[in-house]
Amino acid sequence: MGKKNKKDKASKAEKKAAKQAKKLEGKPVKTGKGETPAEVAAELVRMFNDGQWSEIEEKFWSPKITSVEGVGVAKAWKGRKAVDAKNKAWLDTHTIHSARAEGPFVGASGFAVRYSMEIEDKGNGQRTKMEEVGVYEVKDGKIVREEFMYRT
Amino acid sequence: MGKKNKKDKASKAEKKAAKQAKKLEGKPVKTGKGETPAEVAAELVRMFNDGQWSEIEEKFWSPKITSVEGVGVAKAWKGRKAVDAKNKAWLDTHTIHSARAEGPFVGASGFAVRYSMEIEDKGNGQRTKMEEVGVYEVKDGKIVREEFMYRT
Repeated sequence: MGKKNKKDKASKAEKKAAKQAKKLEGKPVKTGKGETPAEVAAELVRMFNDGQWSEIEEKFWSPKITSVEGVGVAKAWKGRKAVDAKNKAWLDTHTIHSARAEGPFVGASGFAVRYSMEIEDKGNGQRTKMEEVGVYEVKDGKIVREEFMYRT
Repeated sequence: MGKKNKKDKASKAEKKAAKQAKKLEGKPVKTGKGETPAEVAAELVRMFNDGQWSEIEEKFWSPKITSVEGVGVAKAWKGRKAVDAKNKAWLDTHTIHSARAEGPFVGASGFAVRYSMEIEDKGNGQRTKMEEVGVYEVKDGKIVREEFMYRT
């Protein structure tokens, strides 16, 4: 009886320790079926640098994509229609003189790309060099969220 | 009567169009009280480049922080204790010879920092140059999630 109690206590303590250790472990992050973040990332960078910008959207954007513009704008557009309208408004008022994607940097839930662009405001002709990071979340091989973060 | 009907129809159509236009608008992204992502970002980069790494954690990490390691690891550690254990295990097995933060790149929900590091594996003495992007989510002036994305 005494022995059994000791054994029980030991195994209880062991179980407790194992449970606590398990809490400190990392849990796998999964992105579902289809292309992995690494695959989507590599293709996106290649396609961007080949000028296939609309093809990227056709190929990788989820119909439910959320697109977030960074500091100064700080807004989220939800759904393909809203994101298309946002991008069209921007392209209507800006000329892109050069654009380069660097990366990718591959995470677990998605990836990041560093962009360097030279753009011109069609309204006043002002040219600006933009440095930003695009952060992408991937689910089932599609981009479900993108956020553009600007070099300040 | 006929006039009124026309008016009703027109105002109904207007309301519908306004509703649809509203759907296409961006919605503000908020991060709560306290320091903004831009403020946390600027301080984090400065502190990192001054070597105040543990001070960053003390100052900005939420107790509920989730830390995600990118491709190849693809795991998430939840809570301060788990993240501390993950980082301790890494620091026990690696020497950091140089580390530089570039940025920040400021988004709406958080920010990104580009890191360049030269590290040494204490086990085999192998030196590696690492290029990665840290993506941070900010809530109420604290970092609630970080994900490290590696240059592949």
